This record gives sequence, structure tokens and C-alpha cells, in this order.
Amino acid sequence: MRITILTLFPEMYEGFLNTSIIKKAILKELVEVELIDIRPFSTSKTHRVDDYPFGGGQGLVMAVQPVKDALNSIDHKDAYVIMTSAAGSSFNQAKARSLSSHDHLIILCGHYEGFDERLVQLCDEEVSIGDYVLTGGELPSMVISDAIIRLKEGVIKEASHRDESYEDGLLEYPQFTRPEQLLEGDVPKVLMSGNHEHIRKYRLKESLRKTWLKRPDLFKDRPLTKEEAQLLSEVLFESIKKD
Amino acid sequence: MRITILTLFPEMYEGFLNTSIIKKAILKELVEVELIDIRPFSTSKTHRVDDYPFGGGQGLVMAVQPVKDALNSIDHKDAYVIMTSAAGSSFNQAKARSLSSHDHLIILCGHYEGFDERLVQLCDEEVSIGDYVLTGGELPSMVISDAIIRLKEGVIKEASHRDESYEDGLLEYPQFTRPEQLLEGDVPKVLMSGNHEHIRKYRLKESLRKTWLKRPDLFKDRPLTKEEAQLLSEVLFESIKKD
Repeated sequence: MRITILTLFPEMYEGFLNTSIIKKAILKELVEVELIDIRPFSTSKTHRVDDYPFGGGQGLVMAVQPVKDALNSIDHKDAYVIMTSAAGSSFNQAKARSLSSHDHLIILCGHYEGFDERLVQLCDEEVSIGDYVLTGGELPSMVISDAIIRLKEGVIKEASHRDESYEDGLLEYPQFTRPEQLLEGDVPKVLMSGNHEHIRKYRLKESLRKTWLKRPDLFKDRPLTKEEAQLLSEVLFESIKKD
Repeated sequence: MRITILTLFPEMYEGFLNTSIIKKAILKELVEVELIDIRPFSTSKTHRVDDYPFGGGQGLVMAVQPVKDALNSIDHKDAYVIMTSAAGSSFNQAKARSLSSHDHLIILCGHYEGFDERLVQLCDEEVSIGDYVLTGGELPSMVISDAIIRLKEGVIKEASHRDESYEDGLLEYPQFTRPEQLLEGDVPKVLMSGNHEHIRKYRLKESLRKTWLKRPDLFKDRPLTKEEAQLLSEVLFESIKKD
């Protein structure tokens, strides 16, 4: 898979591309990440990439010309082009999976003060990583790339994905490692029982409990199995007793 | 304001801290960002920071000891401590505002395979930047820092905040800059009319239209003014005509 990022700040990516899992994925040639600096494509004398908004208002707006020419400098007819934007569709795990299926993904990094609305026509989709305002699209482009790259085959162990938060529509169960006893509390006994069925059930129940307590909205559009309904009912009754 | 980040990958932050607005905010001493490497605090011979999960399962789990000792190496009794976690409360613009009010914010970066649940007791809050899985808490800690830093007084022009997406519960209106005509379409005439009242109304309506089409969930818990109700009704009728 090839990911091309069009940005005003290519130097921002060095740490990201040279760390841990992403670096290994690039070295193993499981993914290729290409950075394109938008600024040199500006035809203005001073290489301006933004201008005042029509109708007035604060701040400068990213212009169409430099971005369009930067995009046209690469072969993008078979690529899927997304743009980071606060008004985009929500990036989530399902979106990460679907974007990871493209052979070539191009990410246009939005400008912190906004961009000329006509830039939207250059891309297939606007994507937002969350309901907050950032100084630029660079961090969102790294977040999107990171979530996608780790899903590519060979990057991390296949089985690692199975139990993760969001992969089955629930938050992940609590984890514990050594030492067994700490001031902060002991490891639940069942995890040391060696009984795999008990452990599986405990984890599913705690996964349901976390989701119920922290993100009940995730239950929307997620039908429960009979076992899950049973375990979640237990959680509900347990929460009543504590009151 | 002081932001302390506890991480396994301090080298990842160089690009972020040296770019544009964040760099200026640090040079102007509007914010101080401090990176603490967790690994040297591990008391194990090989400076391990993770271990196998009790009860079995894939991947390694971040242990309590190194993180706890790294945290205790700094004076944190008056600090607000958050941890990046897929199970955390959702980070959004309101949360950015509330976190920006702390004099000292400490961010613990979670580990990509999960962490010992007892680490949660070391922090005041778990925070998630979105419903997706990343290789580590480093990018989320940058996203959180970026959203907070740009809100600090003096970092960007005060007035720039007013019209941004999410700040008034709506997505931002479309922006246009020069040139006036492009293959991608013309700038709406009203923006060049010089009539400020017409421009204000146009922008409010387009803001409502974008929110209605892309993020209707934002209308939840957001009462409309009479003018907004009127403009949104127009949007609704205009969308019917197109069918």
C-alpha cells in the first residue's frame, strides 16, 4: 500500500515515520509513505499558499491552486483522495479498515484557518478524526496513517487485533500484568485460575461492563448474543446493588 | 501552562514541537512542554516496561512500576493527570477548553497493546481522541496538546476562534479565497456584495446546512435560536426540492 501525504509541514513527520511499528512496516515494505510539500507548487512569487477570505473574516484560507498542482504532480487517477477537515465524516475503526483496502491513498492536510471550499471537489471524501479544532491537518494525517498501517497484514500479529477496543463493537476488557499484588490492587483471581472458559467469560463481561459504563452509545446498532445479554444483565444488577 | 508527557518514544515529538504555531507558543513562553521517557525508570535489568498479561492473550501489557516511578519523579500533587486510552471519555472541543484551564497537565501515553488496569488509579481521567485503535498514545498526546495550546491566550488571534467548527456547536460555514473563478466553481456572489448582514446570514445558513447534512447529531442538546430555526427550515425545504 502507498500513502501520499500533501502537507505544508513535511518536517513534522520525521518522528512519526521513524518510530517503532511504523518504521518497521516501512522497512519491511508493507507500506510506502510519501510526503509532498505543497508550498513549492504555488505559482505566486512569494510561494503563498493562502489568501484572505471573500466576505471578510479572521484568518487566511488555503487556496486551490497550489494544492491542485501538487495533487496533479502525482499519478492519482486510481488513488483514493481524502482531506482532513473538521466537517468530514467521522474516522473510526470501520473507516480505518475500509481505507486500508486502497492500493494508493492520498491525504490532503487541511489548513488551520480553513480552506477554499472548492478544494473539496479534488477529493473523494472529507474525514475528521474527532470533534475538536487543531492547528493543521498534519496530526490527523498521522493518526489516520497509523490506524491504517497497523491493520496491514504482517505489521502486527493478526491475533492482536481480535480483542481490541472497537473491533467487536465493545471496549476491551481490563488487562493485568506482573506483579500480582500492588498497592493499586490485586489481579483478579480468575485470571490466574488457568480455566480458559472462566477467563473468557470474565473478560467478555468486563468488556460489556466498561462499554455500558463509559460508552453506552456503542450498543446502538450492535445486537447482543444471548450470552452477552445474560452477562450484561448481571452487570446491570450488580450496579444496582452498589447504590 | 505546563504540559508534561510521559512516553516511551520522546523522539517522536521533535517535529511536533518544532513546527509553526506550537514552536511559537513555546518560544513566547505561553506554554512549556516537558517530555519524560518512561523506560529509564524501569527497575528491571533490561529496562522492560511491559509484561505478559495474566490470564493469557496476545501482546504485552504496560506494567505499573515504571509509569508510577516516572510520575513520582515530578511534583504532581497539583497537576491534573490524564491517560490516553481507547476506553476513555471522548476528547472534544469542550474537553480541550476545560483541560486548558489547568496550570499543569500531565499526559500518560498508553501502550499499543494495552496497560495494566491498575494504572488507571494513577490518573484523574482516561481520555480517548476517537473510536479507533492506534499503535500508541503518542499521537493522541500530541493531538490533545495541540488542541489545548492553540486555545491559550496569545497563541492565535482571539477572534479566529469565534467562527470555528464546534465552537458554537455547528460546523464552520464554507470559505472562499482568490481567484474568484475556477474550474471548480465560482465564489458565491453574496460574499462579494459587501453587505455584512447578508454575508452573516449566508454563513449562518451554510453552517446549519453543513451540520444538518454531515453531523446532525451535533443538534442534540443544542437549542436553536428563532433565526437558526428559520434558516434551517429553508435548508430542509431546499433539500426536498432537489429530490
